[in-house]
Amino acid sequence: MCELLAMSANVPTDICFSFSGLMQRGGNTGPHKDGWGITFYEGKGCRSFKDPLPSAHSPIAKLVTDYPIKSEVVICHIRQANSGNVCLENTHPFTRQMWGKNWTYAHNGQLKNFQEQLNIKHHIPVGSTDSEHAFCWLLDQLYLTFFDEMPSTDILFRFIADKALFINELGVFNFILSDGEYLFAFCSSQLHWLTRRAPFGKASLIDTEMTVNFQQETTEKDVVTVIATQPLTDDEHWHKMPSTAWSLFYLGELVGGSPSITKLVN
Amino acid sequence: MCELLAMSANVPTDICFSFSGLMQRGGNTGPHKDGWGITFYEGKGCRSFKDPLPSAHSPIAKLVTDYPIKSEVVICHIRQANSGNVCLENTHPFTRQMWGKNWTYAHNGQLKNFQEQLNIKHHIPVGSTDSEHAFCWLLDQLYLTFFDEMPSTDILFRFIADKALFINELGVFNFILSDGEYLFAFCSSQLHWLTRRAPFGKASLIDTEMTVNFQQETTEKDVVTVIATQPLTDDEHWHKMPSTAWSLFYLGELVGGSPSITKLVN
Repeated sequence: MCELLAMSANVPTDICFSFSGLMQRGGNTGPHKDGWGITFYEGKGCRSFKDPLPSAHSPIAKLVTDYPIKSEVVICHIRQANSGNVCLENTHPFTRQMWGKNWTYAHNGQLKNFQEQLNIKHHIPVGSTDSEHAFCWLLDQLYLTFFDEMPSTDILFRFIADKALFINELGVFNFILSDGEYLFAFCSSQLHWLTRRAPFGKASLIDTEMTVNFQQETTEKDVVTVIATQPLTDDEHWHKMPSTAWSLFYLGELVGGSPSITKLVN
Repeated sequence: MCELLAMSANVPTDICFSFSGLMQRGGNTGPHKDGWGITFYEGKGCRSFKDPLPSAHSPIAKLVTDYPIKSEVVICHIRQANSGNVCLENTHPFTRQMWGKNWTYAHNGQLKNFQEQLNIKHHIPVGSTDSEHAFCWLLDQLYLTFFDEMPSTDILFRFIADKALFINELGVFNFILSDGEYLFAFCSSQLHWLTRRAPFGKASLIDTEMTVNFQQETTEKDVVTVIATQPLTDDEHWHKMPSTAWSLFYLGELVGGSPSITKLVN
């Protein structure tokens, strides 16, 4: 399987702390040694760093850890291959353009019979993974339904959640999707999240000896949500997402989702 | 204006030497300080490194210089902004997917009235540059003409050359385009190239004190073509492309182009 990590924040924030923990799971504290990738949004633009090498030993991952890129939305993935070879075109996250936006996606899980069940017309995959295939099918469905006009946020993400339930029938389909503004997460089997806001405290990583005092790094107005397959810290409260639930974040805040999600936080 | 750099090779080759020269022009020996980017193909996959900061002072550019990523096709760009703000979404190269391939493009020049003259239906730009607009229009034209079926190489690149001539009427349109296999270059005003093959010799960069002896770095069978806006070395013979000429490289070899190009090398 793989591990996912994502962030939504109301001010450009670096993800160095969380990434330092996750990258250890790519060949060190975890078995996800078949490549990794991270996409940072800055406004409408985004940039990705990818490597088919294990993140724990990658000079590019070292750069991402040391160089604090400030971003409002980040999506990150470390891979343990099950569908598709270990190569660059099979390395998440995947980014494609639609409606004048960069759409970035990463998946954790495994899908069966995806080629037969998810028929693609326009958005042909480059690689051979079930993950990219499902992303391309999702874009195809959006395009075939809404054509050249992006629907409202509410209609858009309810549509995506609906299609996610359909794909989820084929196996395990935890995934993260963003257009650089909204961060959408669908939980098939495992996803956790937490929102950090004032009063900020300390947090300690599980995978490497590192503690940060967020009070020294933030202002009172900062709101930062982190989503991860498994909790990354052992002294904070992570929400566990229920299976088949979806959630939508904007500027760090939960702004939509399944009833089971909104019930969790109220 | 901007500067372009590209490579086509028959074996995975690093571009550290050429990039070391070019990056100096991004804020040091040259005025192209408004961002830079480089895309490396590895098989069908590609990865880009981008920064809206000057390349001469960018930690990411330093990594690209020091970390020899081996690739058969590379496209690189350093930017001096004239159309569109300095930000990530306006930073070249641009990569989009079509026909199950990653298409990467970078432009040097300036286009007038591009929004009126180049009407886009499907491939909506993310940023605000003339460059990305022209790329999106080109993809639109390909899609509207060939729809879901990629034509033969010959038909495809002649079509692109034809559309390039049309866009070139709007100003200056030097550009590089690749699908990871073929490397296409169109010269509007300035582009140079050279092909390195056995017997290999020494080469010295113009922009920084660095000499390489390619004989020590290569095997007898290696063929590597480098394309650049201006020559990067002062002790090798660079071909100057004629205005409005196009050329097509595959595995380091020139395999097609305008009559003026094929005449140059024969």
